[in-house]
Amino acid sequence: MLVAALPASPAGRTELVLARLAELGDIGRARGTNRPGLGDGEQRAHDLVAGWMQESELQVEVDAAGNLRGRAPGANPDLPDVWSGSHLDTPPDGGAYDGALGVLAALDATAAIRASGGLTRSVTTVAFRLEEGPRFGRGVFGSRALVGRLEPDEAELRDADGTTLGEAFAALGFGPLPAGPLLGRRPAAFVEAHIEQGPVLADLGVPLGVVTSIAGMAGFDIEFCGVRGHAGTVPMALRSDAVAAAASFVTSLHSTATGIPGGVATVGRLDVRPGATNTIPERAVLFADVRAPDEAGLNALVAGVQSAAGDAAETARCTVTVSERWSYPPQPMHAEVMDAVREGIRSVGVDAVDLPSGAGHDAGILAAAGIPSGMLFVRSDAGGVSHSPEEHTGADAVHACLTALERTLRVLAA
Amino acid sequence: MLVAALPASPAGRTELVLARLAELGDIGRARGTNRPGLGDGEQRAHDLVAGWMQESELQVEVDAAGNLRGRAPGANPDLPDVWSGSHLDTPPDGGAYDGALGVLAALDATAAIRASGGLTRSVTTVAFRLEEGPRFGRGVFGSRALVGRLEPDEAELRDADGTTLGEAFAALGFGPLPAGPLLGRRPAAFVEAHIEQGPVLADLGVPLGVVTSIAGMAGFDIEFCGVRGHAGTVPMALRSDAVAAAASFVTSLHSTATGIPGGVATVGRLDVRPGATNTIPERAVLFADVRAPDEAGLNALVAGVQSAAGDAAETARCTVTVSERWSYPPQPMHAEVMDAVREGIRSVGVDAVDLPSGAGHDAGILAAAGIPSGMLFVRSDAGGVSHSPEEHTGADAVHACLTALERTLRVLAA
Repeated sequence: MLVAALPASPAGRTELVLARLAELGDIGRARGTNRPGLGDGEQRAHDLVAGWMQESELQVEVDAAGNLRGRAPGANPDLPDVWSGSHLDTPPDGGAYDGALGVLAALDATAAIRASGGLTRSVTTVAFRLEEGPRFGRGVFGSRALVGRLEPDEAELRDADGTTLGEAFAALGFGPLPAGPLLGRRPAAFVEAHIEQGPVLADLGVPLGVVTSIAGMAGFDIEFCGVRGHAGTVPMALRSDAVAAAASFVTSLHSTATGIPGGVATVGRLDVRPGATNTIPERAVLFADVRAPDEAGLNALVAGVQSAAGDAAETARCTVTVSERWSYPPQPMHAEVMDAVREGIRSVGVDAVDLPSGAGHDAGILAAAGIPSGMLFVRSDAGGVSHSPEEHTGADAVHACLTALERTLRVLAA
Repeated sequence: MLVAALPASPAGRTELVLARLAELGDIGRARGTNRPGLGDGEQRAHDLVAGWMQESELQVEVDAAGNLRGRAPGANPDLPDVWSGSHLDTPPDGGAYDGALGVLAALDATAAIRASGGLTRSVTTVAFRLEEGPRFGRGVFGSRALVGRLEPDEAELRDADGTTLGEAFAALGFGPLPAGPLLGRRPAAFVEAHIEQGPVLADLGVPLGVVTSIAGMAGFDIEFCGVRGHAGTVPMALRSDAVAAAASFVTSLHSTATGIPGGVATVGRLDVRPGATNTIPERAVLFADVRAPDEAGLNALVAGVQSAAGDAAETARCTVTVSERWSYPPQPMHAEVMDAVREGIRSVGVDAVDLPSGAGHDAGILAAAGIPSGMLFVRSDAGGVSHSPEEHTGADAVHACLTALERTLRVLAA
């Protein structure tokens, strides 16, 4: 084992993780970090982490979906492994912590467990591919592939440059998309450490939290079509203006979400075409992301998307198509894994706070597939901002995360 | 003189103009025609038309703003010229008739006048540069340069690629932007033939019309700034969502325009950033184009832009900046030039219908500078659609335009 790869002191380990976060954050750096899933930046991040896994003498493997795993073998190879990890891709101009912290914290713990001679169960760090949705309009690719939940149209999803997901996957040297699950034996448990991406833990003044459930969510591609015309020559009453329809839809959907407890709706992408200042737009293409903590709220939001789209199109004399891109029901976390996470948090000397996750995570996919899963949330500073270069988590919280996650994994793999 | 350049029969001349329209339309052809002002496509169109001017033995000249002129000298060189023309650039995916028909019709008439030995006054065909606004957010560049009305920031305007107008101008081989007017002697009159870009003449069943005035209009760059965040973790009540502000602005401005007689408002460009499906947008950048036939209506629309922007920003907890890019008051056409256009139209054997122009034109710039100006509108088919590949004007209307414009110029230059 290289000494550089596993400093003896916990403080030195935190510094190593922070240095590695910074190194990963510089891949695809523009205004923020840009490592779109199945792109060059994500691949460079996987290569870097694979090297760190090798330095720590883990058993390194890449599965047929491109997910990276590094294993500290346990004393009893007949027992299923305990897994921990997250993802290494980012949304456009994202931050340094989302995803990467969970992979590096898992690697830190796995390396420490390996260095101390292993546990009863093997412990595996995993870096899932393409967790973020923006590139292809659908995310959690690696975790869905792992449990055999890719959709029939998965390879045909296109990014903004027209590249299909299948083409991007092949360009990295992988074969066809895997058709079934990639698990020879299912893990005994999966724990994902992840920044909260919200203000709750910071407001409570604690560094860590236990996730109780992951919000239900659905994503829709929506396209309004009107009639292009000259900005000066078509009376308002005769227009079929696609941007008018889109504006009405956005306002209506936001209003619906505001009325649903815990409900949120986001139109993060909106393209208006042809996009000329003096031309009435004939097309407005947007993406609507809706989330709610419970089934009833999610159903109300999905119905709200449909009705808002229809009403907006009718008022603006446009047509509309609504295509559901993805939908995940609310996903409770596993009781035993939550207990192990709580024990990990308490080992840091702080209270274990329960909170739901409004963001989707690979842990939700594994949980839905019946793998006992849990999440360790780490305080987000800077007001909880995420998917942004301003995303930040203080070194004290990173340090607490490393300590708590290692303890959690030792409990689960003992 | 080359025989090919000036067929003897009027029908042959119409066919030549239609063939030339098609040839120009193929420059920058994608879904529609793309010849952004001060770009390669516009330059190729200018080169092509300059060649046709030379074939017709006109005196060809390019002024310091890049405007192309072809002159049929008159018997009395001491009298000011009569000018006719339009522009050769197009909006994104535009049509074959907007601008190009006016240049080619003027060239047809000027060539015919040259071939028949000239008139008392010289007659000049002009192709103005960069009439369309989309590329740099401000148009009618060539005609404004001609009359010394470029703005102080003109060279610094940027297109979507970040190229400044000054850089685009220099890349075509021109010097610094002209500081003052380019007219040694002002024209006696200017007549612009142009497609109507609306449904009025088609509804009346006539091929041609006399423009009485050009609408007042103003254009605004508007930028809403909010706070970026994760689509799942920020409650609706705590969001500063830039797309929410933009949507509210669009709906409010459209409503204001609908309440003003003859008023129109168009948001043809709207960019949402960072543009990720799962990120609350922190910026929405849009362009608002407002027009009204009279001063009171224009003032009400301009006030509506300001109040809608302020209200939308406040409701969505965003900030907003509003920058007026251009503003032109309503511009009446010159009585004597209108009379000459009417005589031209009647020479075709049809009624001369009066109508206002909702679109802006180079003729409005020359009129505002005190040059007696008028416009000959030519029927738009396909429901009056323009700034679109579907833009169309039937051969019968093109033929009528050629006959009427030549007669108009002969009246003015006699």
